Amino acid sequence: MQPIGKRRWAIAEGFIPAKSHGPEPLMTSHETACILNAGSKDAHVRITIFFSDREPIGPFEVVVPGQRTKHVRFNDLQTPGKIPEATDYSSVIESDVPIVVQHTRLDSRQDANALLSTIAYASAD
Amino acid sequence: MQPIGKRRWAIAEGFIPAKSHGPEPLMTSHETACILNAGSKDAHVRITIFFSDREPIGPFEVVVPGQRTKHVRFNDLQTPGKIPEATDYSSVIESDVPIVVQHTRLDSRQDANALLSTIAYASAD
Amino acid sequence: MQPIGKRRWAIAEGFIPAKSHGPEPLMTSHETACILNAGSKDAHVRITIFFSDREPIGPFEVVVPGQRTKHVRFNDLQTPGKIPEATDYSSVIESDVPIVVQHTRLDSRQDANALLSTIAYASAD
Amino acid sequence: MQPIGKRRWAIAEGFIPAKSHGPEPLMTSHETACILNAGSKDAHVRITIFFSDREPIGPFEVVVPGQRTKHVRFNDLQTPGKIPEATDYSSVIESDVPIVVQHTRLDSRQDANALLSTIAYASAD
Repeated sequence: MQPIGKRRWAIAEGFIPAKSHGPEPLMTSHETACILNAGSKDAHVRITIFFSDREPIGPFEVVVPGQRTKHVRFNDLQTPGKIPEATDYSSVIESDVPIVVQHTRLDSRQDANALLSTIAYASAD
Repeated sequence: MQPIGKRRWAIAEGFIPAKSHGPEPLMTSHETACILNAGSKDAHVRITIFFSDREPIGPFEVVVPGQRTKHVRFNDLQTPGKIPEATDYSSVIESDVPIVVQHTRLDSRQDANALLSTIAYASAD
Repeated sequence: MQPIGKRRWAIAEGFIPAKSHGPEPLMTSHETACILNAGSKDAHVRITIFFSDREPIGPFEVVVPGQRTKHVRFNDLQTPGKIPEATDYSSVIESDVPIVVQHTRLDSRQDANALLSTIAYASAD
Repeated sequence: MQPIGKRRWAIAEGFIPAKSHGPEPLMTSHETACILNAGSKDAHVRITIFFSDREPIGPFEVVVPGQRTKHVRFNDLQTPGKIPEATDYSSVIESDVPIVVQHTRLDSRQDANALLSTIAYASAD
């Protein structure tokens, strides 16, 4: 299959709720960058996190093999740092081959979970 | 009416929750690719599903007649395979005429249902 | 202010839930096309509704004055027909001047309401 | 990092629910424009609010420093006016450097909160 997507994406919203209801890890409040690499070459992906009041951290490096998807939980990113909970952030996702990126949050702070999702912003670059 | 849309779309998020609350089939947890074919010719649509740890499956073939919409439940796709529940996936949707694709999930794992939706990524191809 | 947007939009998802919990009309299950006309000239908007198993109906005609927004509830459209509840549909929204269109659903079938929203698909035409 | 985004954005949906359940300010019903400025220069951002039945108000002026994000709560905007609750509105967001804008609502009118989010509309201008 032909590759699909762009090499540079941004997600302006970012917030990992600090509370959760329900069984872990499925119902744990979390945010995800879903990354599709429909082409045949591995995608070397670099995620940079921006905050309101401190320097950006990154890049977080992720490999998405050819013809695979990876749903990256921002909660799970470890190197070069952790994203604090209950903190506003944004992200830029860069790849060496075309990818498609979608942003999702599951918020289980109250009794029933809430969801949001949107296609990320694809740069024409 | 003039056709509207593109011939190649992608949805990077995909996850069919394995539990549901409420009457079937309306409140069953599900994911949908809503496909609009506003032009007059039938759309021959091919859906390919990508996973994190195995080969893609597809194409699932769907016909959307001219001037019709079809809200395709990923849960219901049967040939050439089933999409397992509680599993991360992504999809690419290809058509021979312009279509518009929107992605929706209804998640009724907890007492009240949650919803997400986004326009899919439209390739310029 | 300069106009912003496009003249031709589509929303592939459409479904008005048939049940509601909570006070009317705010918490009544509904779908909305939010239309922004940031320019100075009135926008003459025509909405066409597509179904899975019958001919499209429309155009529903709406005027959005210059420098105004109108949040059109699909539930309230009357002429030339009503959109049935609990029925899959899609919509195409056409205007004589640039507009911006966003789609929202409030679903109050279960005890707590759920929401979805997405920017509509903007045609380059 | 290279800047990413556009200088002119619109959000057609806007509605601040008038009721809330849960602890303030996190669970207060609110709407947010999340603004990412990934470049190195400060972004001077001007937000104009459009209504269905009165003149627009604005610009609300916000500075997003270089390499920072700002999640602007519409509820908190004060000058040159307040956005009334339970009122339909839309917004146009303009910047002197490229930014990325995403729209989010948390609605806690009923027992469990609901969320919606979408990328805003990016003008090619």
